[in-house]
Amino acid sequence: MNAPLPFDETFRLRLRDLLVWRRDVRRFRPDPLPAGTLERLIDIACLAPSVGLSQPWRFIVVDDPDRRQLVRDTFKTCNADALKSYTGEKATKYATLKLAGLEEAPCQLAVFADRATSVGHELGRRTMPEMAEYSAVTAISMMWLAARAENIGMGWVSILDPARMNDILEVPSSWRFIGYFCLGHPQNESDRPELESAGWERRRSSQAYLLRR
Amino acid sequence: MNAPLPFDETFRLRLRDLLVWRRDVRRFRPDPLPAGTLERLIDIACLAPSVGLSQPWRFIVVDDPDRRQLVRDTFKTCNADALKSYTGEKATKYATLKLAGLEEAPCQLAVFADRATSVGHELGRRTMPEMAEYSAVTAISMMWLAARAENIGMGWVSILDPARMNDILEVPSSWRFIGYFCLGHPQNESDRPELESAGWERRRSSQAYLLRR
Repeated sequence: MNAPLPFDETFRLRLRDLLVWRRDVRRFRPDPLPAGTLERLIDIACLAPSVGLSQPWRFIVVDDPDRRQLVRDTFKTCNADALKSYTGEKATKYATLKLAGLEEAPCQLAVFADRATSVGHELGRRTMPEMAEYSAVTAISMMWLAARAENIGMGWVSILDPARMNDILEVPSSWRFIGYFCLGHPQNESDRPELESAGWERRRSSQAYLLRR
Repeated sequence: MNAPLPFDETFRLRLRDLLVWRRDVRRFRPDPLPAGTLERLIDIACLAPSVGLSQPWRFIVVDDPDRRQLVRDTFKTCNADALKSYTGEKATKYATLKLAGLEEAPCQLAVFADRATSVGHELGRRTMPEMAEYSAVTAISMMWLAARAENIGMGWVSILDPARMNDILEVPSSWRFIGYFCLGHPQNESDRPELESAGWERRRSSQAYLLRR
């Protein structure tokens, strides 16, 4: 394939808009995504880089109502435990946060990284086996942006017991749980993270995270 | 800020081009990036999602020639060890692969995740402390795409000893090494991963990685 024309300033500005207006969505409209949407987004996710071309990402589309209920149950348990770790004002605030859209998101997806895959012949994973997980995260990142470009919101749920997720979804123990994702049309758009609007935490300037050596 | 106009099909097609033509670059032209480029890309990286808004990403711009030499030294050692793990044809092939642009890349960056940060008040990290690392990887993913949109190539080097990287760059041991990144103008463009062109591994259809439960 011939290389595309160089990306221009108009595209770069829109790309920046996309990054600015991407959110971790927890408030979904209940209407389903058009048939085939999730499969198309997963296809785009697989354009991500992966260590040694190992493609260790594993996507589990979760449709079974019983399994969805079990996921909600483990979320509730883990979230109640998390609440206990806070005291005073922070505990009060935590209790008011909406941290997942598990009840209403029409589309739900679990992502794992297969540490045992022989694809890629271990290249690049010898000193850093965790590169399998990082590759799965790059795939999630690509999917997140592609979804936002279609006005589809995505939310990452990590308040879950990873081992329990392997059990609920009946996947091998060599698969590391990366996250559970809710997808659907968002109730609203914002350029501000919900945790910032809610007063939980604020974003810092990138200068705070840049060092020189 | 008002929401941007909805992203249209033209933008989505260009975004797909961006993902298709993004590469893990190991062959750089030696000309430096314009002043301020890396800082701007790091600023974009910080638009990434992070668990509990913890922003655990730590960017270390590596300019010191002595430190760059130490990084090359640890790469050489780890790469020689990796070669020893292959036999026969795969060993011969591995020896011919160019797996990093450490000699020529004008711009070099190490990324860590600070597991000990109090920012975000531990939200979302209780059952999955590795979410700190995953957040840093999402930041890298955003940066990678923004760089490609400026025709800047980025390559992820993981054939390194993580503990040694903390030493070389004098960062706290609570910071987990995520990767060392080479940036610069790429020598060429391609829609095919270099490891595929070199016959090391091939990409599979996304269908191979999709399950239903």
